[in-house]
Amino acid sequence: MLIPRLIERKRDGLALTGDEWRTLIKAYVAEQVPDYQMSALAMAVVWRGLEPGELAALTDAMLHSGATLDFGGWTTPRVDKHSIGGVGDKTSLLLAPMVACCGVAVPMISGRGLGHTGGTLDKLEAIPGFNTRLSLDEAIAQVKQLGLVMLGQTPEICPADKKLYSLRDVTGTVESIPLISASIMSKKLAEGLTGLVLDIKTGSGAFITDPAQSQVLAKTMIGIGEASGCKTVALLTAMDRPLGVACGNALEVIESLEGLQGRGPADLIEVTYALAVEMLIVAGVETDRGAARRRLEETITSGKALQMFARMTEAQGGDPRVVSDYSLLATAPVKREFRSVQDGVVSEVRPRKIGHAIIALGGGRSKTEDTIDPSVGFLISAKPGDRVRRGDVLAVIHARTEADAERANTALDEAIVIGRSAAPLPLVSHRVTAQGVTTLSS
Amino acid sequence: MLIPRLIERKRDGLALTGDEWRTLIKAYVAEQVPDYQMSALAMAVVWRGLEPGELAALTDAMLHSGATLDFGGWTTPRVDKHSIGGVGDKTSLLLAPMVACCGVAVPMISGRGLGHTGGTLDKLEAIPGFNTRLSLDEAIAQVKQLGLVMLGQTPEICPADKKLYSLRDVTGTVESIPLISASIMSKKLAEGLTGLVLDIKTGSGAFITDPAQSQVLAKTMIGIGEASGCKTVALLTAMDRPLGVACGNALEVIESLEGLQGRGPADLIEVTYALAVEMLIVAGVETDRGAARRRLEETITSGKALQMFARMTEAQGGDPRVVSDYSLLATAPVKREFRSVQDGVVSEVRPRKIGHAIIALGGGRSKTEDTIDPSVGFLISAKPGDRVRRGDVLAVIHARTEADAERANTALDEAIVIGRSAAPLPLVSHRVTAQGVTTLSS
Repeated sequence: MLIPRLIERKRDGLALTGDEWRTLIKAYVAEQVPDYQMSALAMAVVWRGLEPGELAALTDAMLHSGATLDFGGWTTPRVDKHSIGGVGDKTSLLLAPMVACCGVAVPMISGRGLGHTGGTLDKLEAIPGFNTRLSLDEAIAQVKQLGLVMLGQTPEICPADKKLYSLRDVTGTVESIPLISASIMSKKLAEGLTGLVLDIKTGSGAFITDPAQSQVLAKTMIGIGEASGCKTVALLTAMDRPLGVACGNALEVIESLEGLQGRGPADLIEVTYALAVEMLIVAGVETDRGAARRRLEETITSGKALQMFARMTEAQGGDPRVVSDYSLLATAPVKREFRSVQDGVVSEVRPRKIGHAIIALGGGRSKTEDTIDPSVGFLISAKPGDRVRRGDVLAVIHARTEADAERANTALDEAIVIGRSAAPLPLVSHRVTAQGVTTLSS
Repeated sequence: MLIPRLIERKRDGLALTGDEWRTLIKAYVAEQVPDYQMSALAMAVVWRGLEPGELAALTDAMLHSGATLDFGGWTTPRVDKHSIGGVGDKTSLLLAPMVACCGVAVPMISGRGLGHTGGTLDKLEAIPGFNTRLSLDEAIAQVKQLGLVMLGQTPEICPADKKLYSLRDVTGTVESIPLISASIMSKKLAEGLTGLVLDIKTGSGAFITDPAQSQVLAKTMIGIGEASGCKTVALLTAMDRPLGVACGNALEVIESLEGLQGRGPADLIEVTYALAVEMLIVAGVETDRGAARRRLEETITSGKALQMFARMTEAQGGDPRVVSDYSLLATAPVKREFRSVQDGVVSEVRPRKIGHAIIALGGGRSKTEDTIDPSVGFLISAKPGDRVRRGDVLAVIHARTEADAERANTALDEAIVIGRSAAPLPLVSHRVTAQGVTTLSS
């Protein structure tokens, strides 16, 4: 196989064969293909895209470059939810225990926050002692015993994706829907899933801000999932404002625990149910969305979902008493109210500004090696469309110092826009399946 | 300067600044930019192209990455001719001494043959002792003394281009008109020229077979040349069949020497005069093409051009008696006639087939490290449009062995097509200048 000829074919808009992709990825991981050829090929893919057969082969090659969660003959359906990153998005912490209470196993491998978006691992690690660095064997054992595990990427999963992503990150080749899709799906399929629900964020705070592109991303990932025998569905959800009230790791854990006790903010709860319902459907344990919803609600009213969260926390080294004693979580020493300086309507709460303000507070990462303080963040009660009056509290800043709080105050001045009207996106706008796109709300 | 951001901008179809290109190339040569970033950027350039300002800056940066022929205050006009590669193209060997006899200095740095195309250096080195590996100081001294030098690339000229070209060669990023133009023009401008004539080959044997693309290439290179104060003009000439009769290094030297004595094949002589006339025009020593042509003809009839070739040969270590004693050149032991098997019209003499047959005979290169035998090749008297009868000699094969000759015979069977009619391209079809395109013959 002559690599330059493969690059030329992709450059000229032709497809490589599945075998060529598999051989190439294997050779790349074995250091037999230099980075300079792989980056040129990646740019050609950014340019020309990948056909479905190429996508399936590339994903498969990355998936099989390492270990996977192998559940053997275990017949319990296994479903995960994956989100393309957002601000204030703690749905995983709610829906994973809820779904696990419905006879569906949730082997969830999550990421850390980077840039303006938060990460599930960072939220979990706000719970003292909570260990997200499990081995694959430990993860399998916990799923089989408890029905639920939440851990971080391990080095043995998809090493080809790790190597390729590191290269793409420094060669301007991240922004490619096929490459993004193959990267995400190879890691998700490594979880040994029978079903997957994708939460594709739309709007100004999303990774992809163009709604048409969001649908293309959804369809591309669904195509990969279905080709691998993993039933995959996507919901397009709003990320033109933060989800829920809490933004910041410990604050989001509290909001999640409140949610598991039936006291979560309406928008968070609506998105959580919408995703969890789809999880039960793809798992095959429910066929009717109304029935699925009622079953999930029962996990809250009965306290079972909260109990499941506590058991998972205990199984992974954390203090299970956290579910009823939030004082076990880190608290920021400085709390300051942010008030409206005028009468009007909240027209925007800009997620990117909020995300970057959390980084500035020490609660997020601008580069992967940054360490974070779980205690800081915001409670932003203001939602687009709210009528407010001068002096109303719109948010509470949680900061390490007065100076930090002052800077965060300035950031909120830019993030929360008071005007005359608002046009927020519908919370859950579309459902995308292998069969097509359904508009749920517009 | 963050390289990934530059790559992203080019990927998104935006232009980099001249300073960014200059800084980037400097850093690349200094090993501060890794190949994997440069190859991704090169692919983005293949995709998005370069704006004139970017082209000028990139060329300038590559030009100034190394040494140049510095003629100081020397006021003699200095002109070169550059061809984009062909089969049987020995015009350089004729026009360089002719032009040098007209008071125009010719500091010609040439390349070797690769693939189906021949190279001037290989032809010169068919002359025993002829040294093309001069230093830049030796080259400058010879130009000032004799008015003419023909040498190969030296390591100190355009090291950035060498490094970048090696990378492009293995990353599918050769086929880019802006990158090809910048590569060629940086090396040509390193010759310290006041004028340059480009011979852009068109037709099936050309590097670029699409005539529209040939014009784009011509215009792009002219734009770079003129932006650097080097008067640049291009002729589009036919490469749908070999130029002249001889194809093969020693055979081509003989044909060139015959041409310098007024006995060259008509097509070779026509193209040679056309290019040489433009050289005198861009040099500014003639303004009228008819007068330029007469002046060049006089260099042949007077024997001065042949004498100039002999003096150059002697100055560069070769035996000057070669100009009248061709037995000093290597001769192939096997000569075999190739005859027509039918009556008809020569409809095609395919240059790529001929070029590859020369490689098979041992007289060309499929990779740069191949060594070549100067003695082998073809004398192909058949020209498209010729009426031939069964049994007519169409070519003579010069080979090392009978087996080689047999294979070459088979190759000629495919290369020389006898049919009912021919539609060869006009020998010199267009002149392209900074002002526009003139159709000379269609």
